Amino acid sequence: MKILNHSNILGLEKFYRRTFMNAISGYRSGTLIGTKSENGQTNLAVFNSLIHVGATPPHLGFMMRPTTIERHTYENIKKTGFYTINHITSSIHKNAHQSSAKFPRNVSEFEACGLTEEYLEDFHAPFVKESVIKLGMSFAEEHFIKSNNTIFVVGKVEYIAIDENIVQEDGFIDMEKADGVTIVGLDAYYSGQQLGRYAYFRPGDKITPILS
Amino acid sequence: MKILNHSNILGLEKFYRRTFMNAISGYRSGTLIGTKSENGQTNLAVFNSLIHVGATPPHLGFMMRPTTIERHTYENIKKTGFYTINHITSSIHKNAHQSSAKFPRNVSEFEACGLTEEYLEDFHAPFVKESVIKLGMSFAEEHFIKSNNTIFVVGKVEYIAIDENIVQEDGFIDMEKADGVTIVGLDAYYSGQQLGRYAYFRPGDKITPILS
Repeated sequence: MKILNHSNILGLEKFYRRTFMNAISGYRSGTLIGTKSENGQTNLAVFNSLIHVGATPPHLGFMMRPTTIERHTYENIKKTGFYTINHITSSIHKNAHQSSAKFPRNVSEFEACGLTEEYLEDFHAPFVKESVIKLGMSFAEEHFIKSNNTIFVVGKVEYIAIDENIVQEDGFIDMEKADGVTIVGLDAYYSGQQLGRYAYFRPGDKITPILS
Repeated sequence: MKILNHSNILGLEKFYRRTFMNAISGYRSGTLIGTKSENGQTNLAVFNSLIHVGATPPHLGFMMRPTTIERHTYENIKKTGFYTINHITSSIHKNAHQSSAKFPRNVSEFEACGLTEEYLEDFHAPFVKESVIKLGMSFAEEHFIKSNNTIFVVGKVEYIAIDENIVQEDGFIDMEKADGVTIVGLDAYYSGQQLGRYAYFRPGDKITPILS
């Protein structure tokens, strides 16, 4: 085992530390956040920090570094109140990665990265046509994380468009069937293989697979 | 495509909605959080909401529902200031799932779930011996999420113990080599297969794999 304490971590070479510390949280979500500015300019950016905040009412959260590349996304969310979250599939993961580049403000990453803008009903923000799980979100609250000058953004799920073939009878979504990807660090994309799904466990139970 | 708006979501049958909305955020981290109470009782619980907050100084965050099963973990973190985050491997994912059960306060989930308590140097909280990526954390800040009455907990990475065979020359950690798992919803565990790792992308570039 390699052992590092806090000062060993701070003493690591800058790029090594960035790569290492970004990977140490392990597997993360792989999503594209779509927004549209007040004057109609669309924006798309890859995010790997989506987390479940609560199911009733449904809210999801993600981390933002609003002073970097992500600032167009942040500005659009704050000004318009809406954004979309689109799950990355393995078929579009290379396109998704390209959206992490610093494109000028007047370039839409949809076009630059070979992905298709899609509008569903009257929802303000653009969805990614190629995605099979698309969420329309409204801004709910934000929390400034003073430890790192980052922002935790929480949104309400207003709208869901999902391929019904990947939703099981009890509501479970099989991400392997959805061709979903998970991200490690800033630049590595993985597909998933289900090891098992297990019934709610009570002390004294045997572990019981849920078969689908 | 199946389409649902916010009121359709709220109208779903309760258990279906819980399963569906917990899965809709896709792949998440798979970790075990270890704590020890002031009177020495250890506790271990599976968490699927770890996210990277920042690399300099290194901080990670996760979501808590302190009124449910997770309350022992929350109480111990708030009272002692310390906790550990241990990545779940496929070899221990069934043990990890068992820790989601409601064990009485005087039962340690380590013993009940067949996992081994490990103490590293003088760090207060217990690590999981079977894990290959172990983080010693100190409580940094918490944010109450009023949309769902949940808490976003941010901690500083004080200590890392990691199998050096899974760390690449540039600091990247290959989660496939680490035998890591990613969780979907409340009960499904997946292993990962790397699709590719790609160089930082600049407008006009071709997408370039990083070979390791």
